Amino acid sequence: MSGAVARLAQVGGALRAAASSLIKSEKDADNVPSADIGLIGLAVIRAYTARRGQNLILNMADHGFTVCAFNRTVSKVDAFLANEAKGKSIVGAHSVEEFVSKLKSPRRIMLLVQAGKPVDDWIETLIPLLSPGDIIIDGGNSHFPDTNRRVKYLASKGLRFVGSGVSGGEEGARHGPSLMPGGNEEAWPYIKDIFQAIAAKSEGEACCEWVGDEGAGHYVKMVHNGIEYGDMQLICEAYDLMKRGLGMSNKEIGDVFAKWNTGVLDSFLIEITRDIMYYNDDDGEALVEKILDKAGQKGTGKWTSVNALDLGMPVTLIAEAVLARCLSAIKDERVKASTRLEFVGRATTFEGNKEQFLEDLEQALYASKIISYAQGFMLMQEAAKEYNWKLNKPSIALMWRGGCIIRSVFLKEISAAYNRNPDLENLLFDDFFNKAIHKAQPGWRDVVAKAALLGIPTPAFSTALAWFDGYRTKDLPANLLQAQRDYFGAHTFRIKPEKANEKYPADKDIHVNWTGRGGNVSASTYNA
Amino acid sequence: MSGAVARLAQVGGALRAAASSLIKSEKDADNVPSADIGLIGLAVIRAYTARRGQNLILNMADHGFTVCAFNRTVSKVDAFLANEAKGKSIVGAHSVEEFVSKLKSPRRIMLLVQAGKPVDDWIETLIPLLSPGDIIIDGGNSHFPDTNRRVKYLASKGLRFVGSGVSGGEEGARHGPSLMPGGNEEAWPYIKDIFQAIAAKSEGEACCEWVGDEGAGHYVKMVHNGIEYGDMQLICEAYDLMKRGLGMSNKEIGDVFAKWNTGVLDSFLIEITRDIMYYNDDDGEALVEKILDKAGQKGTGKWTSVNALDLGMPVTLIAEAVLARCLSAIKDERVKASTRLEFVGRATTFEGNKEQFLEDLEQALYASKIISYAQGFMLMQEAAKEYNWKLNKPSIALMWRGGCIIRSVFLKEISAAYNRNPDLENLLFDDFFNKAIHKAQPGWRDVVAKAALLGIPTPAFSTALAWFDGYRTKDLPANLLQAQRDYFGAHTFRIKPEKANEKYPADKDIHVNWTGRGGNVSASTYNA
Repeated sequence: MSGAVARLAQVGGALRAAASSLIKSEKDADNVPSADIGLIGLAVIRAYTARRGQNLILNMADHGFTVCAFNRTVSKVDAFLANEAKGKSIVGAHSVEEFVSKLKSPRRIMLLVQAGKPVDDWIETLIPLLSPGDIIIDGGNSHFPDTNRRVKYLASKGLRFVGSGVSGGEEGARHGPSLMPGGNEEAWPYIKDIFQAIAAKSEGEACCEWVGDEGAGHYVKMVHNGIEYGDMQLICEAYDLMKRGLGMSNKEIGDVFAKWNTGVLDSFLIEITRDIMYYNDDDGEALVEKILDKAGQKGTGKWTSVNALDLGMPVTLIAEAVLARCLSAIKDERVKASTRLEFVGRATTFEGNKEQFLEDLEQALYASKIISYAQGFMLMQEAAKEYNWKLNKPSIALMWRGGCIIRSVFLKEISAAYNRNPDLENLLFDDFFNKAIHKAQPGWRDVVAKAALLGIPTPAFSTALAWFDGYRTKDLPANLLQAQRDYFGAHTFRIKPEKANEKYPADKDIHVNWTGRGGNVSASTYNA
Repeated sequence: MSGAVARLAQVGGALRAAASSLIKSEKDADNVPSADIGLIGLAVIRAYTARRGQNLILNMADHGFTVCAFNRTVSKVDAFLANEAKGKSIVGAHSVEEFVSKLKSPRRIMLLVQAGKPVDDWIETLIPLLSPGDIIIDGGNSHFPDTNRRVKYLASKGLRFVGSGVSGGEEGARHGPSLMPGGNEEAWPYIKDIFQAIAAKSEGEACCEWVGDEGAGHYVKMVHNGIEYGDMQLICEAYDLMKRGLGMSNKEIGDVFAKWNTGVLDSFLIEITRDIMYYNDDDGEALVEKILDKAGQKGTGKWTSVNALDLGMPVTLIAEAVLARCLSAIKDERVKASTRLEFVGRATTFEGNKEQFLEDLEQALYASKIISYAQGFMLMQEAAKEYNWKLNKPSIALMWRGGCIIRSVFLKEISAAYNRNPDLENLLFDDFFNKAIHKAQPGWRDVVAKAALLGIPTPAFSTALAWFDGYRTKDLPANLLQAQRDYFGAHTFRIKPEKANEKYPADKDIHVNWTGRGGNVSASTYNA
C-alpha cells in the first residue's frame, strides 16, 4: 500500500514538474512571478550547509515545484544553474530585487544561512521588498528565543515568519529531510504542500507536521540534536567497553554493531558505526583508531542542557553527553593526567561470559536510550507548558522517524506509543517501553557495575541508570538536603503528608532549632 | 602564636571601639559623619537574609567599627537599635539622606538586599547622594554578569563598586563569615580592615582576600555554592546507601557520620548531618524521615552549571547535583513511577562485609569530593582566562577554609596544595590528593558498582568516577564520535599526531567518503 502511494506521489510530482516547467518558460519572458518558493543560501559557509541548500532546491524541483535560487555571491547561483540545476524547474536571480520579483504571491522565501546575525541581516534586507502576508522561513539551526523574537517582529510588519528545524545532513536534504516547522501558523497552509512533499516519508507518512507557535519548531529541533548527542555518546561508550573492556578488534566490534542493527537498536547511527568500524586505512588499521578524540560542542546540545536547567527538568543524559565532549576536548590535560593517575581496583580484567556481556551491553544501550528519549519528551512537555505552546507529541515522534540523524525503528515505537495515548505522561508508562526497561535492567546494571570496576568511563550509561533508579523512587534522600538547608540557613522545610502530626503539620514551612542551643541562631560551631 | 595574635587583635578592637564610641557621642550632636560603614537591609525578605544583615552589623561593631544601619522600612531600624544593637557602636538613620550624611569619607555602604532589581534600585537611589570615590558593596548573591555591569556603570559615575560573596549563614555573619570581595580594586584598601576583621579566621588567617576584577568575587561565591550543592548531594547519597542499601537506623547512620567527622571528611556539613540523624520527633522517629524530599534549585548551582557549559568545562558533579534536585522536585510523578517501575536485578540485597562497605563508602565520598573540588578549580581557572581576571587560587582556598558552609579540614589541604604550588594545574596532580585518590579508588569503584546492582541512585558518586576514569584516559572514544559526524555531515576530523601518514596528515581537516559510494554525498541509505 505505502509503496503504491509513494509511486502515485512520484507520478503526480513529475506531472506537476512538467506543467510548472511549461508555465515557467512562458512566464520567464514576461518577467511574471513564476517560482513557488525562493531559497537563499548556497555559499560555502562550510561544505555542509552549502550542499544542504542546493540539495533542498533539487529536492523541491524533483517534487514539481519551481524554485528560485539566490546567493549573496551570485557566481554561486550561475554555477549551480549551469550544473546541478540544469534542466530542472529551477531559476536564479542576480539581485535580491530580481529574486523577490520572481516569487509568486504570497512569497515564500527560505533562508539557509548561518544562525545568528546573518538571519537578522537577511530579514532586514527582505522586509522593504516584501508585501503583507509574505512568508520568510528560517531553515538554519537558530536558537529558539531568536525565533520567538523574529516571529513577533515580522508579525508587527505584517509578515509571517517560520522557524523550521531541518535534519538529515546533505543526503537528507536531497532525498527527504525531517522538517520541524513552527512560528506564525498562518503560514502553514501556504508551505504545507512543499514541506510535506520534500520531507522524508516513513511508511507513507511525511516526516513533517506543524510543530507549534513561535520558536517551537527550532525548539524541537534543538531537543532532537540534544538527543543525537546522547545517542552518539552511548554508542561511543559501548564501543569503548568492547575495545578496552573486552579487548575486541574493530572488525569484531563492527560485527556486533551489524548484529545490533537487526534488533531493537536498528537505526541510522548504529548502521554508520558498523561502516566506520569496517573502514580501514591502507595499512589495514581501522581509520577510526587514527582519528583524534577531541569533539566540539557549544551548539544545540548545550542549549538543550541549559534550557533543561532553566526549566528545572532533570535531563541528565544529554547533559552528560555534552560534558563528555568537553572532557574529550581537553586532550592535552588528559594526556598529562594519564601519566599521573593510574587505575587501582579490586578487579583488573574482564571476568565472566563475554557473550552474555555483549547481550547485556545491547540492553544497556537500549535502556539508556529509552531514558534519554523519556527525558527529552519530558523536557518538551514542560516547555509546552512554560511557553504556552501546543506541542503534538505523536507528530514529533513521526517527524523524527525518518530523514533525520536519529531515525530508527525505536522511533516507530515511540510514535506508536504516543498514537496509542497522546496524553501519555511518560514514555516509561507505555506498555511497550515499560516491558522493555524491565527486561533490560539486569544486564544494564551489570554493565554499569563492570565499567566502574574496570575503570572504563560510562557517564551516559551510568547517569541513565541513576536517573531511572531515582525516578522510580518514592522517597529520595532530598529530605536530608532540606534538613541541612534548614539547619544552616533557616530555609525551612515541609513535612511528608503521611507523616504529619500536630507539631509538624503538612503544607506549612517549618523551621527547627536543630542544635537545641536556643536563641535565634541555629548553626553549628564547627571550626576547621 | 596565632592565639596571641588573636588576643592582641581583640584588645586592639576593644580600644578602637572605645575610642570610636567617644568620638561618636561627641560628633552625633554636631551631626558630623561618624560611621565607618553603613549597611542597608534589615527587612524580612526572608528570615535568613534579615538576620544576616543585623548579624553582620553586630559583628562589625564587635570589632570596633561604628556602623550606621538603615532599612527601607525604618521601624526595623528603631527596633534593632532598641534591642540587639543597644549599647554598641551602632547608629541608625531614618532617611537615606541622613544615612549617607552619617558616613565618613570615602563612604562605605554595604547592601544586603535581594539580588536583582533591588540592588539596581538602591544604586540609583544612592548615586545622587554620593561623592567621587565613595564605595558601594553588594553583599547579596548577585549573578556575576550583573556585578560586571555594575562595576563599570559606577566607575563611569566616579564611584567604586564591590561585589562580595558572603557565606556562612546567620551564625557566620555574626561570628565570622567567609567573605569573597571583587570589583573595583581601588576600593580594597578602604574596606580591607573591616572585611578582614569581621571575617572568619582559620589558624589566625582571615578568610577574606581580594578576589579580582569585576564580578570575580560573586563568581567565586557562585562556584562555592555549586560545590556546596555537590557536597550536600554526596552526603545524601551516602545516607541513602546506608539507609536503603544496608538497612541501618538513623542512630546508626548518625554514628557513622560522627565517626567520619573525625577523619578525612571532617567538615561542617558532615557535623550537621550527624546532628540531623540524631534529632528525633516526640514519637522517637528521626525528624529527617518525616521531611518532604523535594529540594528547590534555580539559583547559584544552576548558574555554575550553565557557566561551565558556556566555558566548555566538564563540571559534571555540580550539574548532577543540580539535576538531582530537579528530579527530587517532581515528587508527584516519582510517586506514580514508583508503582509502575520495579527493581529488576541479579542481586537483590546487599551481600558482603558491611564494615568494609562503610569504609569503602567513606572513601567514595572522599574521592568524589576531591573530584568535585578539582572540577570547581578547573572552572575558576578557565573563567580567569576567559574573563581576564587574576584569580588567586591559594586565597580562594583560604577564604573557603573557615566561615562558610563548605568549611572543612579538606579545604586546609587544598589551601596547602596551592600554597605549595600556586600554579598547580590540577588538584589531582598534587601529591596529597594524588595519593588520596589512588587509595580511595578500590572502595569507590565497589560502592558505585554495588549501588548500580542494588538499584540505589548515586548520580554524583557515579559521575565523579566516570569523570575520573575519563580524565585519566589518553584516548577516549570521541574518535568514533568525530567519525560519525564526518560520516553524516561531512564535518571533517583530525588525525592523532602519532598516527599521521601521507594520506591522513596531522593538523588538517579531513573528510572521508565512508560508504565508498562516491559522489558528493556521503550519508547512508538507512530507512527506518
